[in-house]
Amino acid sequence: MKKHAPFRFCIATFALFTAGFVGAAEPATSAWRLIDPANTLYMELDSGRVVIELAPQFAPNHVTNIKALVRAKYFDQQRINRVQDNFVTQWGDPNFAGPLGDAKRTLPGEFTRSAQGLPFVPLPDPDTYAPQTGFVDGFPAARESATGAAWAVHCYGMVGVGRGNESDSGGGTELYAVNGHAPRHLDRNITIVGRIVQGMDLLATLPRGKGSMGFYQQPSEHTVIKTVRVAADVPEAERTALEAMRTDSPEFQKNIEGRRNRKDEWYKVAAGKIEVCNVPLPVRKVRK
Amino acid sequence: MKKHAPFRFCIATFALFTAGFVGAAEPATSAWRLIDPANTLYMELDSGRVVIELAPQFAPNHVTNIKALVRAKYFDQQRINRVQDNFVTQWGDPNFAGPLGDAKRTLPGEFTRSAQGLPFVPLPDPDTYAPQTGFVDGFPAARESATGAAWAVHCYGMVGVGRGNESDSGGGTELYAVNGHAPRHLDRNITIVGRIVQGMDLLATLPRGKGSMGFYQQPSEHTVIKTVRVAADVPEAERTALEAMRTDSPEFQKNIEGRRNRKDEWYKVAAGKIEVCNVPLPVRKVRK
Repeated sequence: MKKHAPFRFCIATFALFTAGFVGAAEPATSAWRLIDPANTLYMELDSGRVVIELAPQFAPNHVTNIKALVRAKYFDQQRINRVQDNFVTQWGDPNFAGPLGDAKRTLPGEFTRSAQGLPFVPLPDPDTYAPQTGFVDGFPAARESATGAAWAVHCYGMVGVGRGNESDSGGGTELYAVNGHAPRHLDRNITIVGRIVQGMDLLATLPRGKGSMGFYQQPSEHTVIKTVRVAADVPEAERTALEAMRTDSPEFQKNIEGRRNRKDEWYKVAAGKIEVCNVPLPVRKVRK
Repeated sequence: MKKHAPFRFCIATFALFTAGFVGAAEPATSAWRLIDPANTLYMELDSGRVVIELAPQFAPNHVTNIKALVRAKYFDQQRINRVQDNFVTQWGDPNFAGPLGDAKRTLPGEFTRSAQGLPFVPLPDPDTYAPQTGFVDGFPAARESATGAAWAVHCYGMVGVGRGNESDSGGGTELYAVNGHAPRHLDRNITIVGRIVQGMDLLATLPRGKGSMGFYQQPSEHTVIKTVRVAADVPEAERTALEAMRTDSPEFQKNIEGRRNRKDEWYKVAAGKIEVCNVPLPVRKVRK
């Protein structure tokens, strides 16, 4: 029944997006970097663990602040209170009186930073929103020569800091993850603090809130966050040890090219181009 | 607690994407078109109704074939057998011996068509994948002057026809909907037959399959499709009467511009551009 088999495109896609990926032609070890436990968060839900890699390159103050919130156990028993279809899953009820510890409730936004000193790996392909896109240490990013600014971009699974109308009204007590098509109009308007490297499906499959902007209308609809911990604070045996493909490696370039111009039999027309949010950022479990 | 309120961007986004949208400044009636019941499918799940608007402009033979399959009740008791995170939700088990009726199992692919005669409303913004993007009768689309071809593009919620390696190996017995970031590399490689205009959340929230490419490993994990019907075949009282904003209307242009350069207080930097899959395609219930 080969003729009637389900469509089989993107075996590679699937494998590469999966933490457990072990490729047939495995890249050299140097193409992979350990995801630093000191900049990794575990959000524990009843459904499993969500692993977030933080991006101090782009938001040093927010990353410090969020780790302080986590260490104060601010997020323990907090709630996922908003899921808007094809947009964001958000957690951190503003009415929740969690302990702040050494953290501040608000900080000036870190929407962009200087591109100087960033190991920016550019993508040659055109982009609708930015003059230049690419990758910095595993994060999809953009930069602009006119202003010298760089910023992380809102791809699927990226994590940002909720705020009110003022630029300095967020601080990390409310966070969101992109659960649909990249809302790139948010770029440069909000602080991105990281990306989900495992467990995004747990956030993407939550029921959509029926209230305005996807907020749940009843607290009973909320998903309770059991705990959030910095991975480095978790006993090693309980960690999810992950490594990410280095975005400055030749293997990553090969990976991009394989997606830009697919060679497998299924494809009839190669795209010839690739958009930053369609580039796979492979993550896998560390092999012991 | 205004300072600590959750981020409030995109009130308009939410409203516009929602079928029940009634804007404060309502466009004139002429900006809206009834979604034709003769080219609308209702897929009934235990969780609710998924409404699909078919696109005979792009895939006339497949649309005819799928309606024949529906009328033969091919899809009744069929299964959703694949959900791959940030990619597709797919239904139609190839091993399912449903009745074909007047339909064929396979057809030549309708991956592109001539751009001639299509009421193409172009978008001036640059795109990574196509020389020109825009809209045709409510469907996001692209065209290319070099070849004179046009095609519907893979945005969130678009519905396509699963196939094997051969271009003529699909026919509509297996369908998928995009549940994440637009996989635009599929454009021109597969037949798009429509878009989901209500109930996409029901498909996007399904558990991800743990098998290769998101296929479920056990039939017990499948979601059963109770029935699929052509809306015109359903008694009027049981229909979901929807209308869509005309993509050739001035109101739609205003809508795009409002998203391209947001004026609300929350935004600090206007994107200045918009990508075809970020343009809202407003749908609302018909008011009686």
